Amino acid sequence: MPEPRLLIDQDLHAGAEIALDEAQARHVGTVLRLDVGGHLRPFNARDGEWRARVTVREKRAMRVVLEAQLRQAQPSPDLDLLFAPVKRHATDLIVEKATELGARRIKPVVTRRTIAETVRVDRLESIAREAAEQTERFDAPEIFEATPLPKALDGWDASRPLIYADEAGDEADKAWGGAAGRARPIAEALQPLSPSLKGEEKLALLIGPEGGFTPEERRMLRALPYVVPVSLGPRILRAETAVIAALSVIQSVWGDWREA
Amino acid sequence: MPEPRLLIDQDLHAGAEIALDEAQARHVGTVLRLDVGGHLRPFNARDGEWRARVTVREKRAMRVVLEAQLRQAQPSPDLDLLFAPVKRHATDLIVEKATELGARRIKPVVTRRTIAETVRVDRLESIAREAAEQTERFDAPEIFEATPLPKALDGWDASRPLIYADEAGDEADKAWGGAAGRARPIAEALQPLSPSLKGEEKLALLIGPEGGFTPEERRMLRALPYVVPVSLGPRILRAETAVIAALSVIQSVWGDWREA
Repeated sequence: MPEPRLLIDQDLHAGAEIALDEAQARHVGTVLRLDVGGHLRPFNARDGEWRARVTVREKRAMRVVLEAQLRQAQPSPDLDLLFAPVKRHATDLIVEKATELGARRIKPVVTRRTIAETVRVDRLESIAREAAEQTERFDAPEIFEATPLPKALDGWDASRPLIYADEAGDEADKAWGGAAGRARPIAEALQPLSPSLKGEEKLALLIGPEGGFTPEERRMLRALPYVVPVSLGPRILRAETAVIAALSVIQSVWGDWREA
Repeated sequence: MPEPRLLIDQDLHAGAEIALDEAQARHVGTVLRLDVGGHLRPFNARDGEWRARVTVREKRAMRVVLEAQLRQAQPSPDLDLLFAPVKRHATDLIVEKATELGARRIKPVVTRRTIAETVRVDRLESIAREAAEQTERFDAPEIFEATPLPKALDGWDASRPLIYADEAGDEADKAWGGAAGRARPIAEALQPLSPSLKGEEKLALLIGPEGGFTPEERRMLRALPYVVPVSLGPRILRAETAVIAALSVIQSVWGDWREA
């Protein structure tokens, strides 16, 4: 078993002695069953990943000392996920999988047909931290409060294309008249957006609720110059499947799954 | 709400009167609450999708009459999924999502580090049928009994490349020595395999257990001429995430998410 990873917000440097917070101390002591002398891997997006040894273990407290840096931090691609919250279980799955798939920010947006108007940010943060620890990334994605879609688009940075997966599909696209409004297959639509492998570029993905966007929302989205409508194939996907699928294709065609 | 879809194995043709089996009758009557005169959409991979009207509703029986064909059957790409069974919840998720993502056959394979040696085929079949109904495909994927990996590869049709996602990652690849054995990024590795859009080609995906393949298994796999080792990026993915992610990239680069 590899030594467990732990996302630590404090500064990490050689010789630093760090007191874990109560929840972390309990997790490391009770769930991971580490004792004095045991090793773990604290990490964060600034200071990378370190090897640390447990020096103090009490019921609600634990201290570790940093021995050596194992890896320098690598930023994940500058990729935002905007999604319409779904049922709790599916929303949890979206946050866990978006973390594994390297989204940097997760922004719940409320659309006309969204069934859940709020999210528990603290709950989703703890899912994201745990997934970040498992998936070997250096940061946890930042989780935002749920925002109405128009507000989330207000003041949008036009240099960040917004990939918009419209599950309404072909029939609705035809009604928009011709190729100009047509949603292209996602891999094809991403090709011209792909940045150099240095990865300074930005991107965002928007996935709507199970019921899709309303005609008014689609009209509004398609009128925005930074919106890129894409199709996710001939089958109807559940919202969580669409999120996971689109993020995977984005990372493999645009993001950090490409050759380094 | 669109009319509910129902996968029916019997022949579908105009005017046919069909008796639903007991489980389907209960589902349509009790869960979907359809009564005499209500409409649903029977479908299968031979006869496409039909509009049908309920003519008889009893406690454990229901009859429908087919009114008109709505869509001709479209085959899904000839894509097999081989995966090492994981915990029940994750295995269920894999079958549901592989159905949405258009896998034609689902073959559980037992590897050295596989934690579950059997699957409940009937349970997975019912998950696959329900997902097929929701996702608007015409067939449900065929579910196979769990088989040891070597037996699953025995007599393999060499015209079906086997995409092999090796979560052991870069370090292990380096140990294999040089570019010849290196796992290429999945989108890049798929490019030369992409068939014409007529789609007569075949492909398979193999995803290992959370603990990865053993060195012996990797050596065996890499020695096979039809095996294509691929990488799924710099982060560690859970088994179910790897399945969903790889199937999504396959459909978008190789399969039926491309322009028709």
